[in-house]
Amino acid sequence: MTRGRFITFEGTEGVGKSTQLETARSALEAAGIGVLVTREPGGTPMAEAIRELLLTPRQESVNSMTELLLMFAARAQHLHERIVPALEQGTWVLCDRFTDATYAYQGGGRGVPQEQIAALEQLVQGDLRPDHVILLDAPVEVGMARARSRSAPDRFEREQAAFFQRIRDCYLERARLQPLSYHVVDAAQPLSDVSRQVSGLITGLLA
Amino acid sequence: MTRGRFITFEGTEGVGKSTQLETARSALEAAGIGVLVTREPGGTPMAEAIRELLLTPRQESVNSMTELLLMFAARAQHLHERIVPALEQGTWVLCDRFTDATYAYQGGGRGVPQEQIAALEQLVQGDLRPDHVILLDAPVEVGMARARSRSAPDRFEREQAAFFQRIRDCYLERARLQPLSYHVVDAAQPLSDVSRQVSGLITGLLA
Repeated sequence: MTRGRFITFEGTEGVGKSTQLETARSALEAAGIGVLVTREPGGTPMAEAIRELLLTPRQESVNSMTELLLMFAARAQHLHERIVPALEQGTWVLCDRFTDATYAYQGGGRGVPQEQIAALEQLVQGDLRPDHVILLDAPVEVGMARARSRSAPDRFEREQAAFFQRIRDCYLERARLQPLSYHVVDAAQPLSDVSRQVSGLITGLLA
Repeated sequence: MTRGRFITFEGTEGVGKSTQLETARSALEAAGIGVLVTREPGGTPMAEAIRELLLTPRQESVNSMTELLLMFAARAQHLHERIVPALEQGTWVLCDRFTDATYAYQGGGRGVPQEQIAALEQLVQGDLRPDHVILLDAPVEVGMARARSRSAPDRFEREQAAFFQRIRDCYLERARLQPLSYHVVDAAQPLSDVSRQVSGLITGLLA
């Protein structure tokens, strides 16, 4: 049996990850491929409980190392209990954010040194990395306006524009350094164009 | 201002850590020293919420790496938001379990490689280690019988005797390797003798 592919969707708030995950799911299902759509942090009951801890706004200031370790705790659970078993059964896994988001948010956003993230990545994932990263990229103001229009902000969405700019810069830099696995999609285009491009990317992977 | 001392209390279930923390607190307060009594995992609202996640029995099997990272996430929060500020103000910190418990429970008990724990210890604590570790040691059956008589078992207390034997062995081995910071107290003695010994130890540290 062929191992499934592991494809992650990345980007700042409001760039349309959920919509494009569904576009990708449809393209794969139309080709008769088994798909698991999941998200980080989360994806199992335990990991979703960790997500709650991370996203709930609170009075206590959360240490950036605490935040980083919680992200990887949720990831270890998700990866070992859900993602890896699915890939081994030949299912393709589409994941809303993964470790690239940790580099972007905790690294670029909060200033956690990249080597600390890399050390945890190695500890939790060994050599496992996404086969493909689809980066939905848009100017920060575009995404923030969309995110604000849909719900009350969580602990991350309460941050300022400069925080999201550092995140976007970090994502783009990672894309530049890993051109083979990263696919950058302009998410400021009309939705139908973004969907067509994502659909084309997925179809290309099937070829 | 002199930095406070950081003293941790270790041991398997039911060896009397809570009682001896109070013995130590009384001895220090009688000498006019400011004391913070706290516990791991926990010690801040965020870290206590992580403790809840760790101790609640659940249907989902919890990956040992997830458990390890949650322990250190709680520790990072506790250390940076509470323990270090207290020590810097000259307060002595008495803590119910710390990283030695991670070596004993996740390492000895669950079989997580010691190097992985050491890597996280370095990442979260830098060079900070307890000044003194008071190990309350008793045969596993003695502690288990006491723990069972007092409340419904949590996710750790549900483990079997062999699990706790590995933990005890690991604690004793650590004590052998670090004779200067470890103080082993026979917790199977009558309570009054244990308390007298702990009280003597603390008084000795004040000299």
